[in-house]
Amino acid sequence: MITTDTNILIIGLGLIGGSYARGLSKKGYQVSAIDIDPDSIGYALEQGLIRAGSTEPDPALCEAADLIVFALYPTAMIDWVKEHQHLFRPGALLTDVAGVKCGVLDVIQGTLREDLEFIGSHPMAGREVYGVRNSDESIFKIANFIVTPTEKNTPQAIAVARQLGQLLDFHTVVELDPATHDEMIGFVSQLTHAIAVSLMTCNNDQNLQDYTGDSFRDLTRIARINEKMWSELFLLNRKVLIDQIDSFTAELGRMREMLCRQDRAALEEMFRHSTRRRALFDR
Amino acid sequence: MITTDTNILIIGLGLIGGSYARGLSKKGYQVSAIDIDPDSIGYALEQGLIRAGSTEPDPALCEAADLIVFALYPTAMIDWVKEHQHLFRPGALLTDVAGVKCGVLDVIQGTLREDLEFIGSHPMAGREVYGVRNSDESIFKIANFIVTPTEKNTPQAIAVARQLGQLLDFHTVVELDPATHDEMIGFVSQLTHAIAVSLMTCNNDQNLQDYTGDSFRDLTRIARINEKMWSELFLLNRKVLIDQIDSFTAELGRMREMLCRQDRAALEEMFRHSTRRRALFDR
Repeated sequence: MITTDTNILIIGLGLIGGSYARGLSKKGYQVSAIDIDPDSIGYALEQGLIRAGSTEPDPALCEAADLIVFALYPTAMIDWVKEHQHLFRPGALLTDVAGVKCGVLDVIQGTLREDLEFIGSHPMAGREVYGVRNSDESIFKIANFIVTPTEKNTPQAIAVARQLGQLLDFHTVVELDPATHDEMIGFVSQLTHAIAVSLMTCNNDQNLQDYTGDSFRDLTRIARINEKMWSELFLLNRKVLIDQIDSFTAELGRMREMLCRQDRAALEEMFRHSTRRRALFDR
Repeated sequence: MITTDTNILIIGLGLIGGSYARGLSKKGYQVSAIDIDPDSIGYALEQGLIRAGSTEPDPALCEAADLIVFALYPTAMIDWVKEHQHLFRPGALLTDVAGVKCGVLDVIQGTLREDLEFIGSHPMAGREVYGVRNSDESIFKIANFIVTPTEKNTPQAIAVARQLGQLLDFHTVVELDPATHDEMIGFVSQLTHAIAVSLMTCNNDQNLQDYTGDSFRDLTRIARINEKMWSELFLLNRKVLIDQIDSFTAELGRMREMLCRQDRAALEEMFRHSTRRRALFDR
């Protein structure tokens, strides 16, 4: 389990990696980091978010690590592991923060050295700003931390991943198998972003903002989107997302048919159903 | 123009009618009301929102009115005008609060007595609760008030409608022709509600709420919806709304194609476009 002697190495010191570093260091854990950006490492050292850092895959930092957290985009993480896994010492535990799991875990667990273990984690948190300078561990307080074990994982690794979520003060820490995780994320996160973006780009009228109320703003808030990260997440989970788009489009098409045949009773029933279902999601 | 001598009659004392009464009475204007619900009239009298009220189409109240505001659902308003317009005195000005205009104004202006005038208004405001007891004129402060003149309207009536929006402290008071209004509302309001409802009803998984983040909550907040009012508004504007659904569905389909052919460059360009466009809507 994680103790104050555990050497935690964060690879990728952006918003999420930085928030991990901030939260763990505040509680007295030993955190170091690797990031290609000298400014990020310099800032983190200066602010006491990390005890040591490097802009390269530093052999000493890697060799010393008991627990490695990859806070990189999924494809960058896959490349990093393939290229540099020889630097880790036997028995080290690796985890991540990626928003999709199946395509990522398959590849990494399939290429990992026998004497290392990789356990998937997904901190469901974020902000609309980026980088370690915007890091803030309080974003975890209302968020879910999802551990996604596979048959390759040991109970010890699962327990450490769960403990990490607890140390970071996530609202809830749960386990899901990777396929169920990706299915759920395809709906609650990816489909909502796909809808927001499409709503934002389907109409180029320059004057709409003058007449826009809160509902349009609510639906498009997440249409300001990090294009590199989200195109990667969408593509890694494309089969699930395409199915979710199809199911949503069919439902909107059902409403369209009610409008065509002027079926007021069916519309009212659909609105009552949506009202009842939305009530379940109120916090 | 409206003065403190103007006799203002509100027909339909729900959330919007009540908020008009509250805002106008606070500023010293003379307001009376008609509503079928005795509790609404009783509450409004007791709280000083109105000086006089009735649960029936009271001839004396109608005869005395200079300015009549219909705060009823569109079809109920059309029926009311047809049945009771003989009660108004020559020269009275009528207006409304309906969220769609073309189908409503055509019918009312087509059946109205020659010596009455009806000018369309749309206060773009609301809450997720109903009734005069929840009325609150402060909801107008951030909202748009849209006057929708037709060729049947006089400059005097347009000026009075604009003044009403100003007296109620709307953020902006603007004029749009009814067709442009309905086109705009079909996009910024009706399409967003259609999307939120469909997103809420396309997946019946009972466990989703455990994993739901802010983005899903944002997109479905308006899926709690007054089924009587919205089915009426949707059907009255169905041609516009069907076109908006088609345009949105085509855009989401375009994204789906990008996913099918794994076109990362196209996805990134779509996300950059949406990010740029969303920035225009920030307040």
